[in-house]
Amino acid sequence: MTSDFLYHLAVNIPDTKNPTDIKNQFGHIKVVCLGGKDARMRELAKYIHENVYNGKSGSKYEKDIFEDGHRYAGFIVGSVLCVSHGVGSSTMSVVLHELIKLVRYAKCVDPLFIRIGTSGGLGVKPGTVVVSRKGYNGLLCSEYEIAILGERVSRPAYFDERLRKDLLDAATSPDGGEENAFSVIEGNTMGTDCFYEGQGRLDGASCMKANGEPYTKADKLNFLKRCHDECGIRNIEMEAPMFAALTLHCGIRAADVCVTLLNRLEGDQVNSTKAQLKDFEERPFRLVARFIKRHILSST
Amino acid sequence: MTSDFLYHLAVNIPDTKNPTDIKNQFGHIKVVCLGGKDARMRELAKYIHENVYNGKSGSKYEKDIFEDGHRYAGFIVGSVLCVSHGVGSSTMSVVLHELIKLVRYAKCVDPLFIRIGTSGGLGVKPGTVVVSRKGYNGLLCSEYEIAILGERVSRPAYFDERLRKDLLDAATSPDGGEENAFSVIEGNTMGTDCFYEGQGRLDGASCMKANGEPYTKADKLNFLKRCHDECGIRNIEMEAPMFAALTLHCGIRAADVCVTLLNRLEGDQVNSTKAQLKDFEERPFRLVARFIKRHILSST
Repeated sequence: MTSDFLYHLAVNIPDTKNPTDIKNQFGHIKVVCLGGKDARMRELAKYIHENVYNGKSGSKYEKDIFEDGHRYAGFIVGSVLCVSHGVGSSTMSVVLHELIKLVRYAKCVDPLFIRIGTSGGLGVKPGTVVVSRKGYNGLLCSEYEIAILGERVSRPAYFDERLRKDLLDAATSPDGGEENAFSVIEGNTMGTDCFYEGQGRLDGASCMKANGEPYTKADKLNFLKRCHDECGIRNIEMEAPMFAALTLHCGIRAADVCVTLLNRLEGDQVNSTKAQLKDFEERPFRLVARFIKRHILSST
Repeated sequence: MTSDFLYHLAVNIPDTKNPTDIKNQFGHIKVVCLGGKDARMRELAKYIHENVYNGKSGSKYEKDIFEDGHRYAGFIVGSVLCVSHGVGSSTMSVVLHELIKLVRYAKCVDPLFIRIGTSGGLGVKPGTVVVSRKGYNGLLCSEYEIAILGERVSRPAYFDERLRKDLLDAATSPDGGEENAFSVIEGNTMGTDCFYEGQGRLDGASCMKANGEPYTKADKLNFLKRCHDECGIRNIEMEAPMFAALTLHCGIRAADVCVTLLNRLEGDQVNSTKAQLKDFEERPFRLVARFIKRHILSST
């Protein structure tokens, strides 16, 4: 194509052979942070401005650069681009395709894609941050299934090992600092297309097994225990297999860093207070900000 | 459950046996309109206020009632609730589960769920409005596949016949009025989880067949012709099978009303002008507003 239009981001590339504007605007990006909500990504940009750049990023980090598309929000702060992706794989795959094209047009050097999210935990204390090894789908396979030209295609769904180790490294410090105030662990992450039945919840509009009968609390717990014991799944969200698979397929190093808001072995509803949730939601910010300082900015 | 919290809508139901507040706020709702973007749903509420209620809905239709959840936007105008659902099935299934619970708690009488969206057309002129008969997934089956407790479950994915006929009826008038200025047709609708590879687009970050080779323009056209000829598919979006299947499963009458922005047999990118797109996007508004006046409000 001689020209391109990243439709959902409303980004126009009039000359794909010389995408000068795109290079100028995005060529310096080293980390693309992704998260569900517009508001959280706005907060993350502010957090990085204050905590990574000590208030001196020099960026207009409050401006939503994808505003014209009316679907996703994007904020540039220093070498970091923070973008919202909505709830689940389908919406995230759209923005991911367009962001991968964007970093290619901009000729970004080894850009890292890090999803920062919330999740349900499995056998871990609420507030624990999980850095994902592999994504698992709802059939308990570590792959992402997609229908292409009418055929079922399965792609492997694991995350970049070096990036994961660097993130885990950023969770610890020799002198034990504030970063040890919460637990950061490695684990596998199940991503489902349905928040309710797909995650065995009993509080959805429907809770029905394959045989057409309602499932029970015991069915749910059996399933969640299988996830935990057989697959090493420590948290559940709605994006991991697609995110791992598409980035791996496109040669992008990626990581999924999610805090757990509840322990699904104990219930389906989030019962933490607003103040606790705010603290929990900020934990992945703290880890990723520390990672950026230690592993990205110190090496430039 | 004695209490419930519709997490993504931030709606609290302290006493599920006597959800008085919910009944007061939502019990009168007859139509739930759903669409991808917050901004479009805000516009739709305004459009209904002006064109269905002649500016006299008496509703605070500009207030986003789901604002505290930071994920979806909702606006009440008269007997209509307009709610955004984001891009694709995963995000829409979350809000759909919670809205179905909401109308049940509120004891709404036969509430209709109507999705108003944009889509790619197949062999139809851009600007055509398609009212869907059946949803098809990317494997060209009229069903929605979901993983429940680790097992694959397939549910049928057709829309309510009477509601579809009433919508088509609203497209015509005996004296031929403004409603005939654009074409409204019946057709099947493919909904895919991926906007790019899932729809055979050549302009995504990856375009690869099941055998690992890149697909060509000829492969794409073969696939799209199969969709058109074998399945009667007239438009493609990202929600239809899940939306049809979950509403059908839960006993909710539903319809999918999407305008086509391009003819996919001729290309992958949207080339219409901003003014054309604005006109196109308003067409489902016009049809649904006419339907509400003729079939909902006139019968009360």
